[in-house]
Amino acid sequence: MPEQLTLSIDAMGGDNAPDMVVEGIQVVLKKHPNLRFLLFGDESLLKQSLLNYPTAAAACEVRHTPDVITNEAKVAQALRAGRNSSMRLAINAVGAGEAAGVISAGNTGALMAMAKFVLKTLPGIDRPAMPAYFPTMRGKSVMLDLGANVECDAENLVQFAVMGEVFARIGLNIENPSVGILNIGVEDLKGRQSVKDAASILQASDLPIKFHGFVEGDDIAKGTVDVIVTDGFTGNIALKTAEGTAKMFATFLKDALTSSPLSMLGALLAKPALNKLKEHMDPRRYNGAMMLGLNGICVKSHGGTDGLGFAHAIAVAAELAKHNINDAIKEDYARVKMDHSDRQDRAANE
Amino acid sequence: MPEQLTLSIDAMGGDNAPDMVVEGIQVVLKKHPNLRFLLFGDESLLKQSLLNYPTAAAACEVRHTPDVITNEAKVAQALRAGRNSSMRLAINAVGAGEAAGVISAGNTGALMAMAKFVLKTLPGIDRPAMPAYFPTMRGKSVMLDLGANVECDAENLVQFAVMGEVFARIGLNIENPSVGILNIGVEDLKGRQSVKDAASILQASDLPIKFHGFVEGDDIAKGTVDVIVTDGFTGNIALKTAEGTAKMFATFLKDALTSSPLSMLGALLAKPALNKLKEHMDPRRYNGAMMLGLNGICVKSHGGTDGLGFAHAIAVAAELAKHNINDAIKEDYARVKMDHSDRQDRAANE
Repeated sequence: MPEQLTLSIDAMGGDNAPDMVVEGIQVVLKKHPNLRFLLFGDESLLKQSLLNYPTAAAACEVRHTPDVITNEAKVAQALRAGRNSSMRLAINAVGAGEAAGVISAGNTGALMAMAKFVLKTLPGIDRPAMPAYFPTMRGKSVMLDLGANVECDAENLVQFAVMGEVFARIGLNIENPSVGILNIGVEDLKGRQSVKDAASILQASDLPIKFHGFVEGDDIAKGTVDVIVTDGFTGNIALKTAEGTAKMFATFLKDALTSSPLSMLGALLAKPALNKLKEHMDPRRYNGAMMLGLNGICVKSHGGTDGLGFAHAIAVAAELAKHNINDAIKEDYARVKMDHSDRQDRAANE
Repeated sequence: MPEQLTLSIDAMGGDNAPDMVVEGIQVVLKKHPNLRFLLFGDESLLKQSLLNYPTAAAACEVRHTPDVITNEAKVAQALRAGRNSSMRLAINAVGAGEAAGVISAGNTGALMAMAKFVLKTLPGIDRPAMPAYFPTMRGKSVMLDLGANVECDAENLVQFAVMGEVFARIGLNIENPSVGILNIGVEDLKGRQSVKDAASILQASDLPIKFHGFVEGDDIAKGTVDVIVTDGFTGNIALKTAEGTAKMFATFLKDALTSSPLSMLGALLAKPALNKLKEHMDPRRYNGAMMLGLNGICVKSHGGTDGLGFAHAIAVAAELAKHNINDAIKEDYARVKMDHSDRQDRAANE
């Protein structure tokens, strides 16, 4: 029997909380029966919801708090006034060692700030980064940062590369993931100085990272590499541009297939195949972004997700906790750091 | 009868040159019979090709040069050694007033550098910018910069906004185009300093520009605004991410529709509707990017395009020349400049 693992949950975060949270727990327990949960939120609402999900109820301990961080809350305000919020208490449980990881579908900025404040960053990591999964022609890739790191220097990008590689190894179960830096050309002379410098550091490093070099925007969907490294500004725009394009294509397709009786019949015949396509592009399958680089596991779920999507986010946290992702990051980053400063020392002595 | 308009063409640029160039001329003449062309390139190749396109032959004057700028040529090398190239001589014809605009499907970097060197920028414009058309849920939008302006300050972005607005008015025939700045959130407090400052300048300006504020990546496909303003790094990555996503979706759809005899039959029945979808997403319909901000019209065609795509690029140049786009840009930008420095003067006096 596998070991029991406890996760803490901000049960009040997300558009459909707490019901979708409780439903997500019920769903994830089918695949991961060894999980246990600390649920932070409004006790009466949660107990009401748990009545409908007996399997979930048996795996949960409810910790009451009436305080909630709203989506509109500013980061500073959440840090100051949110000390008894469901989000903060759920994070505290990880800091105190009561839970192996925390999951929230609430306010992203507040979650990142609170988690950084409570858990602190790993040694050598300046800023936490948020990766997201992408569907590709070859399967799935990871891109980071999708968080709030608007301006990134070369050192930040190198840290993202190391964290992303470990995340892909554990989260996507890829033995030796390839890593590329997003740029506007694959030649060494193109692009921003920070991406050029980051590529030089990774190229020179002795780390066992399969560094591919630069990739372009269309390489994301091609699946040219398993890990795409970029700053939070570019990453956010690439992610949302891809989502918008996929949605537009789906709308056009739907319009085309309902434009005449003949094409409606065609669509009906092709329905099982079209459903498979829809499933492949289903954003719920890609839900659950870990905040990498913290002393603890913190997973952000999409705010608008449902029970199925939230179950995916829980499963992500469980996998990462089981495989001690942070130990792997610490180990790898210590090597890049050593290698890098060693190189600088040598250069200084030459 | 409409007035005759002469355009100069780099007949040797592009993967399928010069045949696709000559074919493009033949195609565009059907819609624009008043166009005349100066064709720069290898005379014997061009005369050979023109034999197959008699309508094109009647509208063309061939100017012989054996020199060609290759796709691999570095910008500095092209500027130095390319003085007799088909690209350079075609640009010179605009500088000398022989042609109203130039079209090339050759090396983008070389074209931009040569055009800037020969034609110079418009008063008050620091750097030329390259817009591209995007298919959206509502029709078509324009995004800029897609050129080589990797780092842009607020002033550059404001210049792009003014040029893009005029371009959409003339190129897309929209009376009062709305303009948005690409950012990672729609709130004023998010994003890079340069985009925040650019938004402040545009918000404060008395220009008759319909400034929408910030837009996000998914707003591109939604068609939230007619003009999307961004730096060349982010723009290039958004464009290629969208292209890659659309291609992936099309591949998955094709796979789905050939996965079983039943879905193949369905696809057959829905074929006319699916063809309409394909046509709507056809990149050839969006070919032809003008380099905005130069003292002259210079249009870059995709290198890999065919005759139909090249015809689109010629039509873009013809439209922009006919409507004197550069006069409109000069006029608008003078107003933003005046307004902006006026404001600064007032602020300094307060």
